Amino acid sequence: MEHTNTDHTNTGSTSFALLGLGDMGTALARAWLAAGHRPTVWNRTPGRAEALAADGAVIAETAAAAVAGSDLVVVCLLDDASVREVLADADLAGKDLVDLTTGTPGEARARAAWAGERGARFLDGGIMAVPPMIGVEGSGAHVLYSGSRALFEEHRATLAVPAGTVYVGEDPGFAALHDVALLSAMTGMFAGVAHAFALVRDEDVALKDFAPMLAGWLTAMAGYADRIADQLDSGDYTRGVTSNLAMMVRGNATLLRTAEEQRVSPELLTPFMDLMKRRLDDGHPDEGTTGVVDLLAR
Amino acid sequence: MEHTNTDHTNTGSTSFALLGLGDMGTALARAWLAAGHRPTVWNRTPGRAEALAADGAVIAETAAAAVAGSDLVVVCLLDDASVREVLADADLAGKDLVDLTTGTPGEARARAAWAGERGARFLDGGIMAVPPMIGVEGSGAHVLYSGSRALFEEHRATLAVPAGTVYVGEDPGFAALHDVALLSAMTGMFAGVAHAFALVRDEDVALKDFAPMLAGWLTAMAGYADRIADQLDSGDYTRGVTSNLAMMVRGNATLLRTAEEQRVSPELLTPFMDLMKRRLDDGHPDEGTTGVVDLLAR
Repeated sequence: MEHTNTDHTNTGSTSFALLGLGDMGTALARAWLAAGHRPTVWNRTPGRAEALAADGAVIAETAAAAVAGSDLVVVCLLDDASVREVLADADLAGKDLVDLTTGTPGEARARAAWAGERGARFLDGGIMAVPPMIGVEGSGAHVLYSGSRALFEEHRATLAVPAGTVYVGEDPGFAALHDVALLSAMTGMFAGVAHAFALVRDEDVALKDFAPMLAGWLTAMAGYADRIADQLDSGDYTRGVTSNLAMMVRGNATLLRTAEEQRVSPELLTPFMDLMKRRLDDGHPDEGTTGVVDLLAR
Repeated sequence: MEHTNTDHTNTGSTSFALLGLGDMGTALARAWLAAGHRPTVWNRTPGRAEALAADGAVIAETAAAAVAGSDLVVVCLLDDASVREVLADADLAGKDLVDLTTGTPGEARARAAWAGERGARFLDGGIMAVPPMIGVEGSGAHVLYSGSRALFEEHRATLAVPAGTVYVGEDPGFAALHDVALLSAMTGMFAGVAHAFALVRDEDVALKDFAPMLAGWLTAMAGYADRIADQLDSGDYTRGVTSNLAMMVRGNATLLRTAEEQRVSPELLTPFMDLMKRRLDDGHPDEGTTGVVDLLAR
């Protein structure tokens, strides 16, 4: 895995096209334009492309025309079906295709094979940012890339203009896999955060003081991901455990009683608590929560 | 809210007792002993107290005797019922009682009233640490305190020996409320982390590289707690939203399809996704996830 920071210098050596000018595509285009690039842009509905022309973007009449005039083709569309559709008439032979469209690992792998059959190199990207973070130094915006390493290395300077770049592997599905894994973990965290705010909101607690305390605590606890990785790698789920499942399951009872006192539905916490209990009952009191990972496998 | 760091200097001006020598009580005792204090200790089963005597602890034969000889009484027992039981025969008049036993806000409030009727000042504490972190400089261990501010200020130096101290309010239930809220948010985060590891574990992903990426992402996203607090305070749940509910609900479909591809049960994510969908269907496409907090109220 390699990181580069956002790079606003214009290498200018590549002709490239950007297909798709939704909020994210437009933010990407503006970042490239601000850095002195002149991407060829195309959008299904033309108004958005024209708004960028004043800043130096070259408007293509069709997606196929945009592809024809470019070495590098970046697509940022609604979904994977749109990518297939938009590129249906384009000649991809000899092109470098970078797909920033949100999708699953399976979709990225299939799209990579499809691009390969058409003679294009393929790189999939998962954007870990919202549009306002794009092109903003220090925003933390970054894109996870996977697929052709040669393509990545060759266009790295261009790709690094709107956001930091992280290459996660040759498997074209890995960017989406990492992207979705991070978003899934965030979904769980936001669920817990919603429950936490529900507990305190009707009390005389200053939420603006509670929020940084909560963020600090979650940041400290996020470090346990290292231990979970170590346990999964070693197969020994008791390794380095300081708070074991038996203690945690007892503690869960206090969390549930408190939810009841505060009249907060426990529905966001109980599925995980149920799996912790199941793993405990399966005879693993000295583990942490890593055994739950096993229970999620279908 | 006020923070102090762990303070290992011995003020030595207070005679104090520690009741309860489970793993946490023992860690607390060892931290105080290491700093030169000589607490009077008591435990229901006597072996644990004797192990501490060699390091300077004074053993009391009964809980009542420990209380009688001390100004400050710290209890760290299994649960709130144990506190009532252990202190049943003790004369608490004029004593300062610090209750580090895990419990609910309601239990802490009731125990505070009970202590007040017996002539004691009361401070409740929620320990944000596991035993190995106690007394370790830089471990991040801290205790949330609420209840008698006078008691807290008077004994602050002693209380700060094993862990940092954070005073969260006069309401004796607030330490437990904050404690449980933080642990509840952590439970959600760990659920999300378990799902994330389940997605990647069978792929050729280096988990030891994935873990810090995951922790870094969660740390960045934990900062959104500030925005949720601001939205709850203002009542405007669209304030500052960069990724709205309509987009997130669309994104959830990709998360679920990926779970299916990777043969991972979505059960830890779907309850939150269902509430997001419900809030969206209630007509709030431009909000973030804060509306879910409303839906949790019973």
